[in-house]
Amino acid sequence: MQTRPIALLTDFGDLDAYVGAMKGVLLSLARHAPIVDITHQVPPGDIRRAALLLWQAAPYFPPGTVFLAVVDPGVGTPRRALAVEFNGFACVGPDNGLFTYLLATRSDWRAVALQAETLGLPEPSWTFHGRDVLAPAAARLAVGQTLASLGRPAGDLVRFPLPRCELESETTIVGEIIAGDAFGNAVTSVGILHREGEQLAFEPWLPGSVPARLALAGSQVIVGGLSLDLVTTFGAVAPGESLAYIGSSGLLEIGVNQGRAVDQLDLAPGQAVRLSSARRTQR
Amino acid sequence: MQTRPIALLTDFGDLDAYVGAMKGVLLSLARHAPIVDITHQVPPGDIRRAALLLWQAAPYFPPGTVFLAVVDPGVGTPRRALAVEFNGFACVGPDNGLFTYLLATRSDWRAVALQAETLGLPEPSWTFHGRDVLAPAAARLAVGQTLASLGRPAGDLVRFPLPRCELESETTIVGEIIAGDAFGNAVTSVGILHREGEQLAFEPWLPGSVPARLALAGSQVIVGGLSLDLVTTFGAVAPGESLAYIGSSGLLEIGVNQGRAVDQLDLAPGQAVRLSSARRTQR
Amino acid sequence: MQTRPIALLTDFGDLDAYVGAMKGVLLSLARHAPIVDITHQVPPGDIRRAALLLWQAAPYFPPGTVFLAVVDPGVGTPRRALAVEFNGFACVGPDNGLFTYLLATRSDWRAVALQAETLGLPEPSWTFHGRDVLAPAAARLAVGQTLASLGRPAGDLVRFPLPRCELESETTIVGEIIAGDAFGNAVTSVGILHREGEQLAFEPWLPGSVPARLALAGSQVIVGGLSLDLVTTFGAVAPGESLAYIGSSGLLEIGVNQGRAVDQLDLAPGQAVRLSSARRTQR
Repeated sequence: MQTRPIALLTDFGDLDAYVGAMKGVLLSLARHAPIVDITHQVPPGDIRRAALLLWQAAPYFPPGTVFLAVVDPGVGTPRRALAVEFNGFACVGPDNGLFTYLLATRSDWRAVALQAETLGLPEPSWTFHGRDVLAPAAARLAVGQTLASLGRPAGDLVRFPLPRCELESETTIVGEIIAGDAFGNAVTSVGILHREGEQLAFEPWLPGSVPARLALAGSQVIVGGLSLDLVTTFGAVAPGESLAYIGSSGLLEIGVNQGRAVDQLDLAPGQAVRLSSARRTQR
Repeated sequence: MQTRPIALLTDFGDLDAYVGAMKGVLLSLARHAPIVDITHQVPPGDIRRAALLLWQAAPYFPPGTVFLAVVDPGVGTPRRALAVEFNGFACVGPDNGLFTYLLATRSDWRAVALQAETLGLPEPSWTFHGRDVLAPAAARLAVGQTLASLGRPAGDLVRFPLPRCELESETTIVGEIIAGDAFGNAVTSVGILHREGEQLAFEPWLPGSVPARLALAGSQVIVGGLSLDLVTTFGAVAPGESLAYIGSSGLLEIGVNQGRAVDQLDLAPGQAVRLSSARRTQR
Repeated sequence: MQTRPIALLTDFGDLDAYVGAMKGVLLSLARHAPIVDITHQVPPGDIRRAALLLWQAAPYFPPGTVFLAVVDPGVGTPRRALAVEFNGFACVGPDNGLFTYLLATRSDWRAVALQAETLGLPEPSWTFHGRDVLAPAAARLAVGQTLASLGRPAGDLVRFPLPRCELESETTIVGEIIAGDAFGNAVTSVGILHREGEQLAFEPWLPGSVPARLALAGSQVIVGGLSLDLVTTFGAVAPGESLAYIGSSGLLEIGVNQGRAVDQLDLAPGQAVRLSSARRTQR
């Protein structure tokens, strides 16, 4: 079997040698695994943002990729360390909700709880299980070791409460703001949306709603006291003006052309967002 | 044919999963291509700085390298997406001036306009052609697919006006400031310069001038109201003092020892810079 | 022989094309060498911090790794450029103290002074020996060229004075603060420490002291006017409270839960730190 690629997502930043040491471990145990950074700039301890980034990036990686996710504010506490095998990819990381979106949108997974002893590793440092436990586990998956060999079966994984994403009426989808991105755009749970000719197809990504189609023409987004047109490009509004658009993962986003929507429009996670179409459209 | 390396230059920053998703696509389509980051920290939408960085980095990469450059403020508008094959390397990116310096200094290129349909790709997102169109095209070049197979021939590529870089007299080269670097040094268009014994050889990099030699001793740089000595190292002046030196790409640069010249000397792109030698020197 | 991996540590930041050009050179000369970043965010010219990061990261890389370290405030002056071969890894970088900690903790090294001419390289730029001299030398080591072929034997390498790290009494280890990390934690020279049951094993990493064991229970850390408990996790103290813990390299560190110890406790390099155990413990 070909070595599996390893993709990294952490909140370590890039100022210290932490990421480098972790990659040294990966290279030591899986010399031929392509190693790719998703980002190391997750805001420290921000599990929800990390979970979103993982969900957004995962579909673009080759089959078999091992995602090593280390946003681990509970390191040193008895939180479990997990390896989770999905159909087509695997995740390794602490059991703190990092995999919430992936688990919510897939049913084809099984997990094990890692233990340093089981893995034949020396006693890990008190503060850096990413290097001492999680990276060795990811490297072993990458070179073809089985999930079962890494630990004991684990169920009941930690998840945070999912945001709303549902059809409120035949012409309105309601969701909420779930994160800001690096450009100050607000990412919402309203999705997955994609254009099909003159219609907007809604394929809900979170459980509990049904697919639908809305008329694209005249679509409006209501957030706070604002009503925004749904447009296809930032250039459709003047600099400084706010807009709604479908982000690159199919989630509805709120932006300001050449500005920072999160700050300028005072948007925060949990705030309700409604996408409404003036006219009904056929399913 | 060996897989071609892929070098990335974007303004995506490193806070989001954008670069990661793009690398996932590259890895999916060109598993064995070495992937190297030039930088992802181009100031958002700064096409001129990106064009300079591309021109500076390109000569140091192995023959065959595919440069994937995504600084794309016009994404979602009808701007073209390009693949350009030069003798010895290729570029993929939007048609917005990113390749201006490479095109100005080479004549050995041909280009095609990419289209998602031609490439057999699904409809791209509204906002992320880097991942959905440009990365697939770069990966296909990397695995040996021909330029012609990626789209229709394209001429008349977008270029921004070139800065001045010319011999004003036998002892003076005139150019202008074209960018600041991350340390606050000002990069000028005066180049390419290199030392040859006691002389300074001038091999103009932009069209419209002729090679020359200046005496190195007593060389002065005039910018704004300032007259600076040309020195070989920052340590040649006291901390806080300004200096002129030849940067690592052979372009004349203005710096402040342990300071930020751009801010402290109030330098801005377009400002004239003159390098003068006191004495004439033989060609 | 398999190509040796190359690990990079610089103060170039990630805003410019400097790291990219250096990687282009590595890729040109050592196409199959895995290239891994430790960090490029060493504070500009901070040799002591770079030396610590190198010492911390090196043990986690595979045997044979070539560490290319470029923190080079003296570029352009006659400072030597070095390649140093240790048992199991090699270092390439300027002779300015970067290897102080590695040299202090190992005796199994030999060094050569690099010269562009000896290496058959064109005259290097005035400001970027990382790309023009050091990267070519690292690449040549990576592809199996011998140390001796790269230059002339060099002794008497530049080192900065080592911090204290010694047993002051049978129950007290004294050291000093040596650096801050990116999270604002203060790293001390007190180490290497690891827990063994109810005892704390002290295996001094710097010459001049002897191993010892302290009782773990009741261990206190004195720094400035503060007395801190030694704990195993940040969660052991309330947010905003300060703590002492053993960092992931086995060095004693001072932190503030969800805060920045260096700023809030006004800690600076050179400041004395004492780790005391209430009770004597058997060696």
